[in-house]
Amino acid sequence: MFEARLGSTTLLKKIVDALREILSQSTLDCSDSGIQLQAMDNSHVSLVSMLLQNDCFEKYRCDRNISLGLDLKSLSKVLKCASGDDAVTISAPDKADKVQLSFESAGKERTADYELRLLNLDQEHLGIPETDYSCVVIMPAIEFARICRDMTSFSESVVIACSKDGIKFSASGEMGSANIKLSQTSKGDVDLTVEEPVTLSFAGRYLSTFTRATPLSEKVKIGMAADVPLLVEYPIEDYGYIRYYLAPKVDDPDA
Amino acid sequence: MFEARLGSTTLLKKIVDALREILSQSTLDCSDSGIQLQAMDNSHVSLVSMLLQNDCFEKYRCDRNISLGLDLKSLSKVLKCASGDDAVTISAPDKADKVQLSFESAGKERTADYELRLLNLDQEHLGIPETDYSCVVIMPAIEFARICRDMTSFSESVVIACSKDGIKFSASGEMGSANIKLSQTSKGDVDLTVEEPVTLSFAGRYLSTFTRATPLSEKVKIGMAADVPLLVEYPIEDYGYIRYYLAPKVDDPDA
Amino acid sequence: MFEARLGSTTLLKKIVDALREILSQSTLDCSDSGIQLQAMDNSHVSLVSMLLQNDCFEKYRCDRNISLGLDLKSLSKVLKCASGDDAVTISAPDKADKVQLSFESAGKERTADYELRLLNLDQEHLGIPETDYSCVVIMPAIEFARICRDMTSFSESVVIACSKDGIKFSASGEMGSANIKLSQTSKGDVDLTVEEPVTLSFAGRYLSTFTRATPLSEKVKIGMAADVPLLVEYPIEDYGYIRYYLAPKVDDPDA
Repeated sequence: MFEARLGSTTLLKKIVDALREILSQSTLDCSDSGIQLQAMDNSHVSLVSMLLQNDCFEKYRCDRNISLGLDLKSLSKVLKCASGDDAVTISAPDKADKVQLSFESAGKERTADYELRLLNLDQEHLGIPETDYSCVVIMPAIEFARICRDMTSFSESVVIACSKDGIKFSASGEMGSANIKLSQTSKGDVDLTVEEPVTLSFAGRYLSTFTRATPLSEKVKIGMAADVPLLVEYPIEDYGYIRYYLAPKVDDPDA
Repeated sequence: MFEARLGSTTLLKKIVDALREILSQSTLDCSDSGIQLQAMDNSHVSLVSMLLQNDCFEKYRCDRNISLGLDLKSLSKVLKCASGDDAVTISAPDKADKVQLSFESAGKERTADYELRLLNLDQEHLGIPETDYSCVVIMPAIEFARICRDMTSFSESVVIACSKDGIKFSASGEMGSANIKLSQTSKGDVDLTVEEPVTLSFAGRYLSTFTRATPLSEKVKIGMAADVPLLVEYPIEDYGYIRYYLAPKVDDPDA
Repeated sequence: MFEARLGSTTLLKKIVDALREILSQSTLDCSDSGIQLQAMDNSHVSLVSMLLQNDCFEKYRCDRNISLGLDLKSLSKVLKCASGDDAVTISAPDKADKVQLSFESAGKERTADYELRLLNLDQEHLGIPETDYSCVVIMPAIEFARICRDMTSFSESVVIACSKDGIKFSASGEMGSANIKLSQTSKGDVDLTVEEPVTLSFAGRYLSTFTRATPLSEKVKIGMAADVPLLVEYPIEDYGYIRYYLAPKVDDPDA
């Protein structure tokens, strides 16, 4: 038996919104310690990894490890049927071919139950090696989302250059070019930890997809080092995270 | 001479919005006692009936019975040109080929007059027999609209089951299944009068179309009995109603 | 060297929004006294003229007259990247093939620089003769926009009739007809100066395009006289204007 209850549906909505553009279907690996997900995006370029610890839930029970293969578009439709402040219980018996989502309104005069068919998805567990990033930037998630949006209207590639002076995003295309610089501020909005400066080029549309997670966190953490994938991490309160990984473009002359 | 004046355009906008998706053209039957409309929807499956008593109007005059055949899309365009708080006067001479709508702003420094061509529409007056419904449910109109929207994302058919315990809406399709239950609450939000429990299946997209009337009323009344059409009624303040009728699906195994 | 700085980006956004539907590309003529633009619309039917005096800017420097040929769609994309309260500096060296737009946030911890390629556009300087309009109407810009929108849902042509009694807009088509009358009010919302009454017919979709300038000004000035183009003028605070000119329809029987 697997059962997990959240006091509000809002957090679950935000998580599914963060995942459903990058993954159409995915497997949630549920264990005693919480729920994990790890997958390549639909086009097998970037990687996403999610952790939700069991203390995120009002009630959490997982008698045996269970993998729930879900169509995220269907899950998103079900979540749209719920109010943000409905409590939600996700449950599945040990050998399930369905998962149940039950929503309760505050006064309990309305109950809504949804059953979604489980999918049998191939899973490759990719080891993500721990990396020492030579540059780590913590910045407002909304600002990062805005910059990614602005850059992609200029070019498919976004160059990110990080040094002790700040972080600079650049894009250059037919229309012209764009440069946005952020410095470490006394207000502490932008926080830079730079061992060695690094300049890398990335496919802007993946960065934009990652920013679907913006509503989850006030701050986003960006980790970069030469020749390793970029890390874009959105913390989920104190209970976990969504992490996106994207390899730098190698053939880009700006990189 | 026919002349009817409303102090605000908002009510008329809501009524036309409730009708114009289900009926592209329709005839308003105006008599001394008020305005009536009765018609099959565009696809001849459901039936809609409207009554607006003369006391709904600030001023009402109808010397002789008159039938005004209107294109509801055009009427809706004209109403979009008016502010909600404009006063509106609808008028037509006895043998009219046009109807006039005159809007006045509060200070009267702006007058807008529109003339719409009248249409010659075939009319079949269908007698709607008075029915004793074995289940009558009064519930918040917004809740009914939300449930219809949620159900139709699962299946074309919606099963409505009503008993003394409550009213339950169910839909089941490829993606999975949905069940929403409402109980009679102490708050009085949901009111059930059940002589005999009944379970019937309906085409969800018609139910969804009916909910276009939601802005008209805080509450909606649902009447069901075995083998007769479902009644969905939206009261128009104390002045009348819009009623929709929809026959149950017979070949549905869930019905 | 050309350099012009505005304390906020909002005004520039509104100006570009007012121009970019009617002109896809255009040349800004910059001189010591300010910035001017004059062009036929994309379909060579109407004419638009803009003036921004140098005192509109916080800082303005123009060593030599310079013409900046711009793609307004690209410029609009760049402006979308800025917050309304960012300060913006537009600059170009004397023999430029690019123009630079630099945005600074209030605290200056964020700088964004954009370079747009300049275009070599053919320019015909059309003399606009000074005209004595026999009717001049000053009315709320929002009201004019609403009337143009309402009229165009009835007909391609809009008849504007101006007399001492007021200004009347009419349209008549398949669906029916529309008449909106505004009188000179004691509140001073509508101000009429009529030497001789005039009735002219215009292509409604051009009028609608002109109303893209509505956010620029509270009031719009309409000038009409027999056989000369209509003037629709939106003042830009005390610093200039956008003027649109449109010839009346001659073959229209209503004209």
